[in-house]
This record gives sequence, C-alpha cells and structure tokens, in this order.
Amino acid sequence: MTNNNVKEPLLSGSLNETQKAKRLLNKRRLNRSRSAPSTDLVPSETQCKETTHPTTSIFQNLHPNYKRVAIYLAVYLGVGALIFFLVRDQIKGTKTDGILDALYFTIVTMTTVGYGDLVPDSHLTKLLACAFVFSGMALIGLTVSKAADYLVEKQELLLVKAMHVHQKVGSTGILRELETNKTRYKLFVVFFLLLVLFTAGTIFLVTVEKLDVIDAFYCVCSTITTLGYGDKSFSTQAGRIFAVFWILTGTITLAQFFLYIAELNTEIRQKELVKWVLTRKVTNLDLEAADLDEDGTVGAAEFVIYKLKEMGKISQEDISLVMQEFEQLDVDDSGTLSPSDITLAQST
Amino acid sequence: MTNNNVKEPLLSGSLNETQKAKRLLNKRRLNRSRSAPSTDLVPSETQCKETTHPTTSIFQNLHPNYKRVAIYLAVYLGVGALIFFLVRDQIKGTKTDGILDALYFTIVTMTTVGYGDLVPDSHLTKLLACAFVFSGMALIGLTVSKAADYLVEKQELLLVKAMHVHQKVGSTGILRELETNKTRYKLFVVFFLLLVLFTAGTIFLVTVEKLDVIDAFYCVCSTITTLGYGDKSFSTQAGRIFAVFWILTGTITLAQFFLYIAELNTEIRQKELVKWVLTRKVTNLDLEAADLDEDGTVGAAEFVIYKLKEMGKISQEDISLVMQEFEQLDVDDSGTLSPSDITLAQST
Repeated sequence: MTNNNVKEPLLSGSLNETQKAKRLLNKRRLNRSRSAPSTDLVPSETQCKETTHPTTSIFQNLHPNYKRVAIYLAVYLGVGALIFFLVRDQIKGTKTDGILDALYFTIVTMTTVGYGDLVPDSHLTKLLACAFVFSGMALIGLTVSKAADYLVEKQELLLVKAMHVHQKVGSTGILRELETNKTRYKLFVVFFLLLVLFTAGTIFLVTVEKLDVIDAFYCVCSTITTLGYGDKSFSTQAGRIFAVFWILTGTITLAQFFLYIAELNTEIRQKELVKWVLTRKVTNLDLEAADLDEDGTVGAAEFVIYKLKEMGKISQEDISLVMQEFEQLDVDDSGTLSPSDITLAQST
Repeated sequence: MTNNNVKEPLLSGSLNETQKAKRLLNKRRLNRSRSAPSTDLVPSETQCKETTHPTTSIFQNLHPNYKRVAIYLAVYLGVGALIFFLVRDQIKGTKTDGILDALYFTIVTMTTVGYGDLVPDSHLTKLLACAFVFSGMALIGLTVSKAADYLVEKQELLLVKAMHVHQKVGSTGILRELETNKTRYKLFVVFFLLLVLFTAGTIFLVTVEKLDVIDAFYCVCSTITTLGYGDKSFSTQAGRIFAVFWILTGTITLAQFFLYIAELNTEIRQKELVKWVLTRKVTNLDLEAADLDEDGTVGAAEFVIYKLKEMGKISQEDISLVMQEFEQLDVDDSGTLSPSDITLAQST
C-alpha cells in the first residue's frame, strides 16, 4: 500500500475549503437532504484526478439545475402569455392591456390563485386553463424545491467568506455550525422575505389600487396563500404589472416557508433520536449484535455501523448490498480486503 | 460473551414477520423516509424485553399519529363552521343553508380553492378568513403527509397477507419487494383514487349542478388544483354537501400525487448513485481511504462505512459523533470494545 497524503481521509477533517464549500452546495435536496448524494466522493478528486471522471459526470446529472428551472419558467410564461393573448376574446372580465392581461392570467392560473377577475369564456380557453394549471403546479413545485435554495446558499457562502475574513475563525468550524443550523437559517431568510413581500404588497394595494389597509392585507393574504376569492384583485394596469412579479415570488416564498418548517420539524425529531441512541447505555447484548465479523470484539467501524443503523440512517438493505460487493472483492476469503485482493480480482 | 440466539442480528435477516411488518409501517415519513427512524432498533425487543422501554417510548413519540391529525381536522372544521355560521350575515354571495354554507366556506378557504361564490363582507370576516387560510394550509400539509400513507400501508399489509396465503411465497421476499416498489405502488394507488374523484366530480356536476361535460370537467380541474376561479362552483344545497367531502379529498389527493412523483424521482436518482458506487472499480487508494483503524487491511465493517459514505447515506458528522462515543467506551484503549470495557465503564 502506497503511503501518501490520502491517509485516512475518511475520519480526519481533511477536506479543504473549496471541497467543504462544494459539499455545502451539493448537499441540498428538496425532500431528502440527508440521503441525497453529498460530495463525500470529492476527497479523491484532488488527489487522483485521473480516476474521477465518473464522479464528476454523475454529479453534473444529479445537481439541482437552477438554470434549467429558470428557463422552463420563462418558456412556460412566454408560451402562456402568447396563447392567452391570441384567445383574449374568449376570456371575459376586467381587462387592461392585451399582452399584460394574458401574462397576468397565466400567472394567476399557474400559481392557483385563480381570482376569477379574468375567466375563460369558451370551451377552448377552459381546456387551456386546465392544461396550464396542472403543468403550472408541477413547475411551481419544481421551482419551490430549487430556486430559493440557490439564493440561500449563495448567501451562506458570502457569509462564510465574511466571517472568515473578519473574525479569523477556522472556516471548518463555521461551516459545520452553518450546516447544523442551515434549516433554521433558511427558515429565517424565507420568513424575512415573506415579511418584505407582505409589506410591499399591502403598501402597493393601498397606494395604487386604493384599498383600505384591512382590505389590502386581506388581498395580500388571499393572494399569497393562493386562496384568491377574487373580490379584491389587481384591476389597474400598474397593479397587474406589479402583480405579475409579486404573485409569483409571494406564493413560492410562502410554499417554501411551509416546506422549511416541515424540514426543521423532521430534523429536530431526528436529532432527538440520535441523542437518545448515543446516550443510552451500551450492554453486552449490544456488543454481540454489533460484532459483525464474530471475532468476539467490536471494532470502531462495527460500532459505527451498529449505531447508525439504530439511528435509522442506514438500513439492513444498504448494508447487505455493500456486503455482497465486499464478498466478491475478498478473493482470498480472508475476511479483509488488502491490495492483494484487488490484484487478484483484476487478474481474474 | 453469552452465546444465545441474538448472534449477528445485524447482518442476518433475522427479523421475524411481525417486526418486518412493523418496520414497514414505521419507515414512512413525509420527506425523509430514508433518514427517518426505522425500527431497526426492534430486533432487541423480543429477545430482551427489559432493556427496551426507552425504545418503545421513543417510537410512540415519533410515530405518525394519524388519529391526532384526524382530530385536528375535525376540530378545525367544527370551529370553522361554527364561527362562520355566527358571522353568516357578514358573508355575501350564493347562499343555501346556514351551517352547510359555513362548513363549505371553511373548506373552500382551508384548501385555498377560494371560488369567491361566498366572500367575507366585513373587516372581521376578512381577518377571520386570513387566519383560517393560514392555519388551514398548515393542517392540509400535515394531512397530506400522513393520511394517505395510512391507507396505503393498511392496503399493503392486506396484500402481503393475501399473497402469503395464496401463493405460498416467503413473506420476507414479498416484503422486500414491496419496500422497493413502495413509491411506485403509492403513486399508482393515488393516481387511481384521483381518477375516481375526477369521474365522480364530473358526473355529479353534470347531473346535479346541470353543467355541460366540458364545464363540469373544467370545474373539477379548477377545484382539485385549488385554482377556483369561481365562475363555476357548487351552488345548490346537494352540491355543497357533495363538495364538502369531495373538495377536501380531491385537493389532498392531488397534492399527494405530486408529492409521490417528487419522491419517486429522488429515489430513482438515489438508486442510480448507489448502483454507480457499487459497480465502480475499487482501487488501492479506496482501500487506504477506507482503512479506518489503519491496520493495513479493510474489514467488512470498514468497507460498508466507506461505501455508504460514498453513496451519501451517511456523513462524516454522523461517523464522528459515534466515534466519540466509541472512544469513551473503549476504556482500555485497545481499539475494540469487549465486555471488559463495559464492565470497566460501569464501575467508574
């Protein structure tokens, strides 16, 4: 075994700063940030460039492709605005400007706000609205899962840089801290954004649409939650220009807010379980159960597997799958892998 | 070390049927089924009853409490119906029966359908609607995450029983198969339910509300997606009785459908990564990196940890946490845990 600087990257905190930052960026996924691929594959990247082509290509595929979502959104809105502009005579209600109304109608439909101030008035437009609301919902879902994460992570990296420069704290420590409090931080950012959107919406409705404060607040709530009774909506041209941007960001931000609350809730429960697993007394029965190779003692790795399994982080299925590969690789059946196994495996 | 039947429960498939079934039931969580606590703790339960009280109480707390969600929902709807009945004179629009309209209004609000056929007509009712839409959204989110899982799992267990009786296949095999295809199966069940709800809604609107087929389909789409323009809605007493049940199940089912698509998508990606990690060639560099105790060879447990880390199932943080406990427990600093360590640890 060659003895170079890759020595125990598994247990040491040997990731460099760029890798840590990358890891931070990559670990994000809508539903399963814990099980989603992290860049723990990365360590090998800098040390042995030639072996990492598959890693890189896999991650390019798995990455949240923010740009792609933005393009989808732009195409959807463009197509929507064009189509509903072409059939504008088959839509009835409060109208201002042709193409603006079409875009406004597309957004009110895709976000499921559905005020009803503009409604389809023919079979064609009704069916079009049906098609647009389903595809719009899917697209909004996709956007919710990707868009704000992007913003939050950009901001996190800036924060890390700032802390690193000003407080001279080791960046590893900061990053670990950030990772732990990530959900709380995201929730805070989104809550702040929501407050800004609420205030902006209310002020706009009072000054431009001339609603009283309670009505403006009511219209803001009704819109952001996608309730959209439609008794109060954006009826002026200026109002609709504002609405086009404000409705889209508002509804997405609120959806995200709820998502992060759910995520935080899961994390808190998960942490409670981890804490319980780590503090409960280890008995001789545990040692027997953890003794994977049945040699009468429990090594560090065996103990780690046993505990992580108890925490529910890994399942028996995960372990069995890897064990199958291990047995195939262990050509000399020694119960351990050594460079000689690798050589033997490659020669056969 | 006593030599009883607990021998290697970690790697053998020694969970009995009840435990497997329990595991199946417990593994469900909205966002993080993989990282959510599974009952991998259960193995010790049957073999050493006296040590498992903490396990049981932890899981009672962590379980999705379906009943509790149902109670919340009933209380919410009860309070909503009562309050909006009391302020019925401050709500304008198409009215049928006092308490029915109040319940209908509560449901149209909480699901964010917001037709606008009934709208608040005073500052008080407007603010009430704001309060109800936010709390309703949270409750619907909670319901989406719990309710249908319950139904699906009930059905799965029935299916397992049926297959076990009729085909005489080992239940372990069936359960593993079910676990793997669970998301696909759930998606299928929810899709089927959605078709039923679509058909029922359309037929009802055609026969009772006297809409033409396209209008009925349009109203169904507009409602289930929570778009609710409000140009077509339930205006008769019979219609509103139907709507009360149909809107709630329809919107929740569609939300679940989208959720399962997202889940399936994540699972497919995750599987691709697992496959890649398991099929890529193991090099000497990997062996060095996986050699946790630096003894020059890689044991089974070390290999499992290395691969699971590469799959992103566990993080460095997870490992470090458990390693800390290991080091504390390894009183004689032998690098392994044995019954003597436990005895030493307890005596100090």
